[in-house]
Amino acid sequence: MLKLFEYNWQVRDEWFDWCDSVSEAELLKKRTGGIGSILPTLYHIVAVEYGWICGGIQEKTIHIPPFEEVASVQRVKAFSASCHAELAPFVYAWNDSLEDRMMIDITDSGEREPHKYGEVMRHLIAHEIHHIGQLSVWAREIGRKPVTANLIGRGLFEIQ
Amino acid sequence: MLKLFEYNWQVRDEWFDWCDSVSEAELLKKRTGGIGSILPTLYHIVAVEYGWICGGIQEKTIHIPPFEEVASVQRVKAFSASCHAELAPFVYAWNDSLEDRMMIDITDSGEREPHKYGEVMRHLIAHEIHHIGQLSVWAREIGRKPVTANLIGRGLFEIQ
Repeated sequence: MLKLFEYNWQVRDEWFDWCDSVSEAELLKKRTGGIGSILPTLYHIVAVEYGWICGGIQEKTIHIPPFEEVASVQRVKAFSASCHAELAPFVYAWNDSLEDRMMIDITDSGEREPHKYGEVMRHLIAHEIHHIGQLSVWAREIGRKPVTANLIGRGLFEIQ
Repeated sequence: MLKLFEYNWQVRDEWFDWCDSVSEAELLKKRTGGIGSILPTLYHIVAVEYGWICGGIQEKTIHIPPFEEVASVQRVKAFSASCHAELAPFVYAWNDSLEDRMMIDITDSGEREPHKYGEVMRHLIAHEIHHIGQLSVWAREIGRKPVTANLIGRGLFEIQ
């Protein structure tokens, strides 16, 4: 579980670096599919991970700023770093005994939906990778090479 | 590990169904990013999973047909089903003792690269989700709703 989170965090940071070399206009331009533009997609990934882990599973009172309040690469990056600092201890402490614990999600329509922690964690892994796949298409649309999505070759697994 | 493979297989099958309602011209049309078109992306996902698990980890002699030989939805679907039948037993039998076992990958340039089984398996999970994210953008480009990428709500985790 942890390795796939580490993969996502590493890829996300590389996308922030990538954003530094692209104009703000391109990062905010309306595009087809997904969240509809590059920087809001990165914001959305951060907000969803933070919301489910700290707000949902840990039941903390959290504040997620609207995108308009963090609408620059530096601010989304800072938002990501602060969410990461708060949620990473939970991910690093993950163990199999947490798999079947239950959390309650209050849906947009006000319904209470129970989910296992293990389902939420895998949902977050897939959620980020999926949106990053969308960024890779948009990067090519503006003639830029996307961040590599390869998990192999990132040094996440030590070879003795 | 297994749950994320099951997620990918379920999503992949839904994309095959989705393809049935789209013209062959759209499925093969050249697009921006990734593998560059819809059906070849699904073929590529299948070939990569099969190649790494049955060819790489299991060291079987395998045959991966070139795309031109399976260039229809029905044939890529059949290719996927046959690869799945061959590789699924390995995935279902996965356990933590396999994490650090080593396999040797022969790269395109002929180099021998060692990888842990655990790294290969997570690479495959991320690989498929990433490419499916690209399909979701291309689906919107042709005015079609993509298959949902949500992992939550697919019945992969039983609630007692």
